[in-house]
Parts: sequence; C-alpha cells; structure tokens
Amino acid sequence: MMTSSIASPARPLPNRIPPEILCAQDYELLAPRCMELPSHDYIAGGCGRDTTVAANRSAFARWAIYPRLLRDLTTGHTRVTIAGKGYAHPVFLAPVAFQKLVHPLGELETARAAQVMDSCMVSSTLSSVRLEEIAAAAGPDRWFQLYFQPAQEGTRDLVKRAEDAGYGAIVVTLDATIQIPSMRALRSGFRMPRDCVAVNLRDETPAASAPLGSGQSRIFQGVMRTAPTWRDLEWLLTQTRLPVWVKGVLHPEDAIALQSMGVTGVVVSNHGGRSLDGAPASLDALPAIRAAVGASFPLLLDSGIRSGADIFKALALGANAVLIGRLQLYALSVAGALGVAHMIRLLLEELEVCMALAGCATVPDIRPDALIGHHIPVDHGHSPC
Amino acid sequence: MMTSSIASPARPLPNRIPPEILCAQDYELLAPRCMELPSHDYIAGGCGRDTTVAANRSAFARWAIYPRLLRDLTTGHTRVTIAGKGYAHPVFLAPVAFQKLVHPLGELETARAAQVMDSCMVSSTLSSVRLEEIAAAAGPDRWFQLYFQPAQEGTRDLVKRAEDAGYGAIVVTLDATIQIPSMRALRSGFRMPRDCVAVNLRDETPAASAPLGSGQSRIFQGVMRTAPTWRDLEWLLTQTRLPVWVKGVLHPEDAIALQSMGVTGVVVSNHGGRSLDGAPASLDALPAIRAAVGASFPLLLDSGIRSGADIFKALALGANAVLIGRLQLYALSVAGALGVAHMIRLLLEELEVCMALAGCATVPDIRPDALIGHHIPVDHGHSPC
Amino acid sequence: MMTSSIASPARPLPNRIPPEILCAQDYELLAPRCMELPSHDYIAGGCGRDTTVAANRSAFARWAIYPRLLRDLTTGHTRVTIAGKGYAHPVFLAPVAFQKLVHPLGELETARAAQVMDSCMVSSTLSSVRLEEIAAAAGPDRWFQLYFQPAQEGTRDLVKRAEDAGYGAIVVTLDATIQIPSMRALRSGFRMPRDCVAVNLRDETPAASAPLGSGQSRIFQGVMRTAPTWRDLEWLLTQTRLPVWVKGVLHPEDAIALQSMGVTGVVVSNHGGRSLDGAPASLDALPAIRAAVGASFPLLLDSGIRSGADIFKALALGANAVLIGRLQLYALSVAGALGVAHMIRLLLEELEVCMALAGCATVPDIRPDALIGHHIPVDHGHSPC
Amino acid sequence: MMTSSIASPARPLPNRIPPEILCAQDYELLAPRCMELPSHDYIAGGCGRDTTVAANRSAFARWAIYPRLLRDLTTGHTRVTIAGKGYAHPVFLAPVAFQKLVHPLGELETARAAQVMDSCMVSSTLSSVRLEEIAAAAGPDRWFQLYFQPAQEGTRDLVKRAEDAGYGAIVVTLDATIQIPSMRALRSGFRMPRDCVAVNLRDETPAASAPLGSGQSRIFQGVMRTAPTWRDLEWLLTQTRLPVWVKGVLHPEDAIALQSMGVTGVVVSNHGGRSLDGAPASLDALPAIRAAVGASFPLLLDSGIRSGADIFKALALGANAVLIGRLQLYALSVAGALGVAHMIRLLLEELEVCMALAGCATVPDIRPDALIGHHIPVDHGHSPC
Repeated sequence: MMTSSIASPARPLPNRIPPEILCAQDYELLAPRCMELPSHDYIAGGCGRDTTVAANRSAFARWAIYPRLLRDLTTGHTRVTIAGKGYAHPVFLAPVAFQKLVHPLGELETARAAQVMDSCMVSSTLSSVRLEEIAAAAGPDRWFQLYFQPAQEGTRDLVKRAEDAGYGAIVVTLDATIQIPSMRALRSGFRMPRDCVAVNLRDETPAASAPLGSGQSRIFQGVMRTAPTWRDLEWLLTQTRLPVWVKGVLHPEDAIALQSMGVTGVVVSNHGGRSLDGAPASLDALPAIRAAVGASFPLLLDSGIRSGADIFKALALGANAVLIGRLQLYALSVAGALGVAHMIRLLLEELEVCMALAGCATVPDIRPDALIGHHIPVDHGHSPC
Repeated sequence: MMTSSIASPARPLPNRIPPEILCAQDYELLAPRCMELPSHDYIAGGCGRDTTVAANRSAFARWAIYPRLLRDLTTGHTRVTIAGKGYAHPVFLAPVAFQKLVHPLGELETARAAQVMDSCMVSSTLSSVRLEEIAAAAGPDRWFQLYFQPAQEGTRDLVKRAEDAGYGAIVVTLDATIQIPSMRALRSGFRMPRDCVAVNLRDETPAASAPLGSGQSRIFQGVMRTAPTWRDLEWLLTQTRLPVWVKGVLHPEDAIALQSMGVTGVVVSNHGGRSLDGAPASLDALPAIRAAVGASFPLLLDSGIRSGADIFKALALGANAVLIGRLQLYALSVAGALGVAHMIRLLLEELEVCMALAGCATVPDIRPDALIGHHIPVDHGHSPC
Repeated sequence: MMTSSIASPARPLPNRIPPEILCAQDYELLAPRCMELPSHDYIAGGCGRDTTVAANRSAFARWAIYPRLLRDLTTGHTRVTIAGKGYAHPVFLAPVAFQKLVHPLGELETARAAQVMDSCMVSSTLSSVRLEEIAAAAGPDRWFQLYFQPAQEGTRDLVKRAEDAGYGAIVVTLDATIQIPSMRALRSGFRMPRDCVAVNLRDETPAASAPLGSGQSRIFQGVMRTAPTWRDLEWLLTQTRLPVWVKGVLHPEDAIALQSMGVTGVVVSNHGGRSLDGAPASLDALPAIRAAVGASFPLLLDSGIRSGADIFKALALGANAVLIGRLQLYALSVAGALGVAHMIRLLLEELEVCMALAGCATVPDIRPDALIGHHIPVDHGHSPC
Repeated sequence: MMTSSIASPARPLPNRIPPEILCAQDYELLAPRCMELPSHDYIAGGCGRDTTVAANRSAFARWAIYPRLLRDLTTGHTRVTIAGKGYAHPVFLAPVAFQKLVHPLGELETARAAQVMDSCMVSSTLSSVRLEEIAAAAGPDRWFQLYFQPAQEGTRDLVKRAEDAGYGAIVVTLDATIQIPSMRALRSGFRMPRDCVAVNLRDETPAASAPLGSGQSRIFQGVMRTAPTWRDLEWLLTQTRLPVWVKGVLHPEDAIALQSMGVTGVVVSNHGGRSLDGAPASLDALPAIRAAVGASFPLLLDSGIRSGADIFKALALGANAVLIGRLQLYALSVAGALGVAHMIRLLLEELEVCMALAGCATVPDIRPDALIGHHIPVDHGHSPC
C-alpha cells in the first residue's frame, strides 16, 4: 500500500523521531512510508538500470576497518580544516534539488538542521526554496552549488546572488550535462509536482534550442552545444572571489587538470549514480585521485554513504570530508529538520565510534592503512599455460 | 499465458512503438509477448545450458565507464571508417537466420529499418527471404553472410548472387560447423515452422552423407567431413572481388592467421552463445585479439550487446563496430521495421550519451583507458605459504 | 512424493531411454524419480556439508573453452594410450560401491554397458556383485579397485582374485581411511539395504578392534591403527604383476612420492567429495600435479564431471582420461545397462563436439591453452597503502 | 513459534543430547528452540548489521584442506604446549558473559563440561556466577578474562580474586571499549533479564560520569575517558604473577607492540563480530600477525569457528589454540553441561579426522601448506591499458 505523501495537506508534519530509527541508515528503511511511491523511486533510483547505484554501495562493503588498541583518545574530535577553513566535522549536506518533493518546507528545514548540527550545507541551484531564504536559515557554513546556465549572465547572476547571500564557496557541478533517466522512476510514473520548481531560476527563459541540421545529433550538436567547457570554467574563476569547487570528478587526469587550473578542491562523485549508468563507484575512484593530486589538495566525496563506517572509509581513502545526499532527503521526509539533524548526529556518533575503535583521535589520523581489503586467497602459481 | 505468434494471421501486424519501450534493452522485455513461447526459447536460448549466453552478458558488467569533464563535443559524431569505407555509425545488424519466425515479412522489414537508419545490414545465408529481395529493400550498406556449402558450386553460386545483388562484403561464418543444440529450445518443443525455410538454398540438394565405417565417429568422420578448412578459405578468397570478413573468431592466433591470409577483417563472436556452450565471452576475447592484430586491422564484435553502454565498451576494448543480433529480432517481433529502426535509434542515442559523458567526440576517441575494471582489493601479501 | 525404489519388485525394470534425456547431465535430473529419496541423498550428497561436492562443480565452471577455426579434423578420434595400453576413449567408469542400491542387477548391468561402449570399468572392492561375475560381463578393459583389508591376507586374496578374473590393473584407493559421513544422507535416514552387501568380502571377519587405552584417540589410536602406510603400499607393489594405480591424490608432493615409488599412475580425486569435506576440487588440484609429475606420467581424474565439456577441461588441464561416478549410478537407476551405455555415448559425443569446435583431432591435442580462465579485471594499481 | 526459555521454571532442565545433533555445528541449528527469541537474536547477532559476523564465517570457507596419503598417524594426538604449559587439546572455551541467560545454572554447567573434557575455560569478568564458584567447578585449566574497571582498585581486586581462585592466566580484553549495539538484538527487543547480573562486580559503584563540556564528544571525552591505554596495561603487568594475555588483536603492529611489552600471548579476535561492525575476519587477520610476531609467540584465535575443519584452518594459519564462543552457549542451552561437553567432543573428533586425513599427527604438524586457497583463474595479461 502506498501512503500519501508527507507533503500532502492531509498528513500532519512530522515532529518526532520514530523509535525504529536505531542508526542513520534506518532513515532509508522508513522513507518509503513517508513519501509517494513514485517519489521514492525517483530518489532511490539513480539512472538507467541503477548499475552505478549498486556499485556505490558495494564499494564500501569491500573494505574492512582495522581496530587498534590502547591509544589515548581523550583529546579526540572530528574538527577538520579544509582549504584553510575550519569545520566542526566532515559531514556536509550534499546539494539535493527540489526538496519540497518530500517536505512542504523543503530546503528550509534542511538548512535549520544544518545550522543546529554545525554542518556545512551545499544548497542546490535547483532548490525549491530561494537561495536567499536558505542562506538565512542555514548556519554560517553554507556553500552554493552551481549549474552553468545557458547564458553567461544567468550564471553570473547566480554567482552574484550566492555571494550576496553569504555563501562561502561555489560548487560547480560538471558531471550532469546529460543525465540518463532512471528506468525505475520512469516505470513508476514519477513526475515532478507542479509546486516543486527551480525558484532560483524563475526568471530564466530557456534558451531557444537551435534547430538541428540534417545528419546532426540531438546529443552532440543539440544538448552538448550549451555544455560547459574548460573555457567556461576559466571564465567562472574570474567572476567570483569565492573559492570554487568542482563536483563530479572521477578520473585522476581531470582532477589534475582542475588542480592546475586553480580550483579550490574537487568533489569525487558520480552524482549518486544519477548521471552515467555504468560509471565507477566514487569510492573506487578516490584512491587514484588522491594519489594524483597529492596529500594536501582538498577532496570531498559523495555517492553511497549510509553510515559512519562508510564515512570513515572515505576519509581513510583520501577524502577530507563527505557529502550526504539520499539520507538527507530520507530523514527530511521522515521527521523534517529534526530528522535531518538526528541523521547527522547519528552519522557523527557512528564515525566517532569507528575512530575510537580504530585508534584515530582526529580525522587526519584516519589513513589508508586503517583499512584492509577483503582477503582473496590467490592460487599458488599453477595456471594452465 | 502464451500469446499467439505475431506471424499468425489472427494477429494484426505491429505498427506502433509500445510506450513501455524506454531503452533499447526493453525490446528484450517485451519480446515474449510478441512471439510463441517456443520461438522465444529458441531465440533467447543459446546452446547447451546457456553458459556462454550468460558469460556474454556478465562480461559487459565487469567494466565501468569513466566520465570525463568539460570537453568541447559540439563536433561529435558517430561516423566510422572501416576497411577504407565510411559508415554513418558503428551499429550494424548481425546476420540472423529465419526472421519470418517472428514477423510475416521477415528480413524485408529488417532491411527497411536498416535503410532508414543508415545501418549496415548483414544478410544471412539462411534468410527466409531471398537475398536479392533483401538487397532491394536494404540501404547501400549491406553485406552478405556466407556459410560454406557442401559443394563448391553451391558456395560459388551464393557468392556470385551476393555480388550481383550489390552486397558490399562477404562475411563467412566459421564457428558453426557444429552447433550444440539449446536445451531450452529442445525442452520447450521448438520446431522451425514449415514456411520458415532457407529460400536462398532452395535448389540445393543436400550432399548424401557417406555411411560411417566401423569405429568411425559421427562427429569427426561424419559432420566434420564437409567442414571448411584453411584450404577452402584460400579458395574462397580467389572467387570474389568483394572484401571477405571472417565471423566467429575468439582466439588471437586464429585472428593473426586470418590477417596473414588476407581477409579484410574479423568478427569477434561466439555466435551469440549458440555454437559451443562454454566458449568465452566475445568481449573477454576482444582485447587479446586487438593486441594480436595491431591497431589498424578491422575488427567487429557481436554477442551480448543490449545497450549503448555495451557498444561503448566494445569500441573501447578494440572493436571498430558492433553487430546487433537478438535485439534485432526482438524489435522486429514487437514492431516490425518501425521497431528495428527505433531500436537502432535508441542504441545510437545511448551510445552518443555515453560518448558525451565520457568526453569522446568520435568513435576513435573511445580508447581502453575510457574504461575501468571493477576494483578488487588485493590482500596485502600475507598468503599462508 | 517419494517414488518406490527401482530395486523394489513392484516396479518393472527400466528398458528404454526416457525422452527427457537430451544430454548426459540429464540423468542427474531424472535420477530422483528412479530411486528412494534417502538413497538419492546418499548418492548425491558427499560428506559433511557437501562443501567439496560444490567445489567440484564450480571448478569446471571457472574455465571456458577456446573455439578454433578451419582445422581438418576428418582423422579425429578419441583413442588414447595410457601406460602403454590403448583404449577406445578416455571415459572410464569409476569404482562405485553397492550398485544394487539402485538396480536389482547392480554392477552386472554396468559391466554390460562398459563392454558395449568399450569403456574401461573399474570394479569396486565393495561391489554388490562378486568381482568374478562382473569380470565375466565386462569388456576386456576392466580394472579392480582395491581397499587395503585389515589383514594382509585379505588384501592379498583380493589381488589374487582380481588377477585370476582378468582385471588389467589394481587401483588402490587411499583417500578414504576415514570418511566424514554425509549430513544429508544421515538426516534423510539413509541405511544401506540388507541385500546390498560387500559380497567380495563375505568371508572376511572384521578385525577385532583393540580396546583404547586411557587418553587414546578413537581416531588416531583406533581407526588409523589399520590405515595403510607407505610400507603397505611398498608391500602391495611386490604382490602383483598388474599395474598399480593410486586413487585419491590431491597434493603434488604425494603424486611425486608415488611416482618415485613406481606406481603406474595416479587418480586425482577427492572421492567425489565423499571423504574430507573441505578438500579442494579435483580439477583445481590437477594442474599442480601435472606440473609436478611431468608430461608423460599417467594421470586420471574424477569428481564433478557431468558433461563432455567437463571431460575436455580435465584433459586440457592434464588428465589422460576421466572416471565417471555419480552419472554412472544415475543412468543405471534410470535405464539399467541401456542407460549407462547411453550416458557414456552422450558424454563421448559431447566430448567429440568440443574437440571438433576447439580444433583438437586427438586427445593429446587438448592442451592447457585450449582453455581460458574467467577474466577478472584487475585494479590499476591504486591500492590504499 | 517461540518456545519458552530454558531458564524459565516451567521447562525441565535438559539432560540428554537430542538425536538431531550430528556434528558440532548442529548445536547452532537447535539453539533457537532452546531459548527466547530475543536472547537468540542477542547471541547470534554481533553488532551493527552483522557485517563482521558474516565475514568471520566466509573467511573459513575461502580455504580448502589438502588431504595427504599413507602417513603413519598411530602416535597422533591433539596435545599442545602453549607458553610452556601443556594442554590436552587446543579447544578452549571463550569468555562468554551472562550464561544464566540460557541456562539456570549458567557458567557452573559450562565449567563442569570444561573439567570433563580437559578444556581450558576462560571465565568472563561479566559472568553470572561468581568467579570463585566457577573456579571450584572447572578443571585445573582455567583462565580469567579481565575487563579494566573504572577505578584501578576494582581492576586490582579482580586480579587478586582470580589469583586466589587458582586461575592460571589473565586474559585482558581490549577491543570492547565501545561496542556498537546489535541492530538485530535491538529490533527484537532484547533486554538482559534481572537475574542475569555481573555478580563479580556487585560491589562496584559505577564511576560517576563527569559532565561533558560544550563541544565535547560523548565518545571521545565521555566513554573513552575511562578506556585503558598502554600505560594501564603496563601497570597491569606489574600487578600479577600470572601470565597476561591480550584479547582482541587484529593489527600486526599492535601484536608486535604487545609482544615487546611482555605479554604472554595474544588472542586474535574481533569479539565474535560484537565490537566494531566492519572489522576484518579474525582468520583473515591471523596470517599477518603470525608473520609479525614470529613462529614461537603464543597466539589464540576466536570468532567464527563452527567445526573441527575450522579449527584445523585456524591452526594451519598460525593459531596455537582456539576459543569457542557461540557454540558454547548454544550447547549450554540445548543440553547443559552435557551439551557443552558433547560439543567439545564433537569438535575434537572432527579436528582429529581432519588431521588424520591431512596427514598431521600433531598440532604443530598443521602448517600453512596444509591449506590451499580457492583457485581463481587469472586473466592472461590482456588488460585494456
């Protein structure tokens, strides 16, 4: 049976944590009861046949955490310094679009949770609440996620508004010039509700698409005509005094090129498996990128995190902090701002327990040798040839 | 419930694309509704216990595609040059026999779709429509698939007719001297319908099989007596001015020998898992063959392709183009020529999306380093001995 | 529902091949209908929790067979020469005890099938028909499987009887000094029927077991007190002019020691997974043993074979011939001598088809490079440490 | 249906071995019938989502045991010398807390079984029977498991009492400063019954927890404030004349540090998967630790053992003996002292059978080369890059 959406008027706003929530991942279990089924298919699904969604999860399962003994951890904490700035902890909120889909107050509730929990919130270009309102509700650690707009003025205006609203960084997403649609969402008939709109862009007129010539491709000469290139990113770097991050990096050569170009940091991400079905797991891509950019270049990671142990693994393999996407929306649907705050608190405590048991007093203490891969016995050299 | 065959008079010819088709692979899902169950078992099954059919699919799943950022792809296209000749795209139609099994007009419909979509169609010796009629319906890019006939004159006549009908290449299939029957098709009681005959061969009298002597083998001294050898292929190369391809190659040494002998190119194929149950996946065999024959020798691949991402992976691992077999028949059963054309279009667009997201403007840009294998953590050197 | 045993008087003797049998492995599918359920559990189960039974099957699945093209195979055959003697083919019948369990005539029927199919039958010490009667029914290629008896005279008598009955070799089984019982058979309540007895040993009085002292082990000081040692094997080699094989070898060092001692050959076997639960698959053990004993030392293999492709793989990895155990009993239960003969015929033809498609005219042509392991993409060097 | 607990007055005490018990692992199958369902969830579950519980089991499955032939094993036995002291066999009883949960007499019954079977019992700080009573019931081989107490006097008193009661070693557990709760136990509503208390600690007043300051962590500045450090262990070593073992070691560097510090030996353990969900399997951690500490440093192992074959594998990979946890409690629930004794006897006989079939007369004969990993065919060098 499908329950009615939490966003529907007939259902009271959530205002308590359900007793079934024992760990952060439990918000994933409860979410289907708190939103329309097609919305859940849209959120839980990625793109295509969810190959990359599955890869994201299995990548974490392939690592174990080494417990360590007898270390004095009484000075332990989770504070991190990223690109020269301190943060209370490395659990950030990923830019997730259209949050009114699961809660009538949408991103406002998320922002309140972020403030309470000292979590850096990355607000989406496609938020269903205006970026200025989100900024007013969020804590001091807030960043703005930017999609390049069809016209340069559109992009510039968004950057200007983000600066004016006090966002501390621009996170430009580059892996979604095309997004393969989710078969799961399509089959369940998902459509974005009318009241769920990209209010930041309300005044934008979509660029009239030029007609394709004979033999031209809807992809290459159509969609990709307005896709950003290296030149666009160079231009963007001249348009703002804010640090600029690039989100959606999986290949080490792209990471190196971005580092050379002067971006502040990179978010290793496959868009939660929502862009290219068949892309590798973010976690699998992380070690090569960390090796490529060196020890000190800032790296974040998202895609697939469901627990503090997952966060520990991402930090061990080279991330300076992580972004939480789906759990954010699940917790919002289950218990609004309270839920999001609780979810962050659970993740943090799960992370701290892992750190304590692994003998890591601080985030920089979490190094690759804190992990061990699944042991695969090798054969003793008797291959047939 | 088994639906009646699309080929039966009671059922109207398909003339629209069902709304359930969201991607090329969906034709596989719908096909069981559009043909007799035994026919579906015959087509979907391979040979033996379908070991190789399964290997073909899993081979694609073992590779991920690296997304790349910010490249200018506005000049992108899928045109390819193969053996000195240009083709609109690398999605060819594999030679599939007896297409009247799933559509009353059989290969004629497929040929029309090929023409509309600028797809090179490879017409089978065992087509249920005469090769001359197929040629008249197909586009300019059409090749003829040849089985060696028991008598040389039979083979020569087929080649001559293919030349006269304007086919641009001969693709001689060499991996099916014996085909292990499909347990699945046998158990479901499949029999080829009476009106589904190899019309190209109608005038051929089967060579009287010589009686076996005592202790002789039905396989070695029976079936294999008429199987082609290297000498037969040498002879064939002298009989036609057309380029000659060899289909069914999996071992790199066979590929090198064929290259030395002067064939135009090779189709890496296990006959869709329909010849030797237990043969390796075509995709698994491809890299060694590409390494063996060098960068410029033409290679095609079939067996297991269901999506544009699969095509991308085959191109990355060394194929110049791919052949589509089962999806061709599934689409034909679902919506005739329209379905086949739509299926090709979907594959092409899926391929273009992968190219765009992977930063590849052209097919030659799709190189091995566009892929990454599934990451398997290795143990840290503590094996027991 | 349990059907009554084929051995029960109420059921007519099988005298035809059921039409469901399409390949040799199909006898495994039909067997449960043709014997008591506990008997089937006893035969199908191995020992303990059937870990090794499963390993035997999965070992074959990890190899693919390379098809090869255009070779002239018209002189092909399956004749083999093993230890200087010629055999019609490499498909031998493994020593399987107590065959009256599934057919009232037991080993007699099997022997008739072996004769018809020119298959070398290895008759068990624990046969339910006297070895002399089996010898009279079997063809000229018959070997005798020997268990060391508690007293030397018992062993010597068996060898003498085997020599007198015209058996051509002694196959001494050494891996079953203790057999872990099958949980599956125990749970289904299997008990050997009263009329199923080791008639070869009828006159043997079991050696009175010496009482154990305090702190002594039922295993080490009990069962193992009568277990054969290297000295016993040395003695055996002096007692017969027949070639002596050793069955149950998995470790290459044991194979080398046996070779040095002068045994004629070795059967790589884990007793069909019926001795030590947790032993490696025979096929996995084979390459190291072949490498250890050199190219010319005779090696047989059993455990896990269900098809001609499995036989091909065992021959490719170093066996000179294989022994068929469970399929033998299954075919016997389904259709008596006719079934066993048909099963051998199917295996042979399946093997010949594999040879033909893999371009191997003779058994010695089947070399390790005819196989390719499942391709496992490796990570590109970015392990975390 | 849930049966009432064995500990409830309505149910007679178990006094016979159920006929379903065919091997030691069968106690795991029967246990759910002999205790409350939540208790079973508490015992069978580990912590978190039972990732490590599953890893412990699969680690054993990845090894096969090599059978060896013809060795004289009549002098075989399972006696071991560990840290200079002889034991009848290497099957010890792990410290398991609160055994009255499954049997009204709790640890007393277990101790009686240990005495009868000459098994070294490790009694838990958190036993539900006083350590002095357990000592009186157990055999001469008894060790005491110690948790550091909040105050030094508490720890010292426990050590003094253990010495006075004749325990032969102190096993200090260091991997459970925090234990991630079991989702499975929480969801089934498990609560420790009122009469199940840590009687050894009855007089201990829990240290008042200091209030946390602003920004302080409940984990680092809370729980970890009283966690033992290297200094505490150094102090402990000065407080007793008994050998001191450390339990809960998984990382080779910790093992080396403990060895340098002078502990008698180390228990390689992940607390049966009950401490850090995501920790590696104990068996996977064992080879690196054995390699690090050298051949003669005493190592025990627990976590995941269910059979004599598992024990054989642990001994082969470097353990000198093993500890049995869950099976101990399962057998206690099924048949009290009789059950525990029978379970040990089954394990021992299973171990002896493995030793006999693997040709190992004594425990030191069980070396790494007695095992072989699962064979994974490697690809032949044709990776794409």
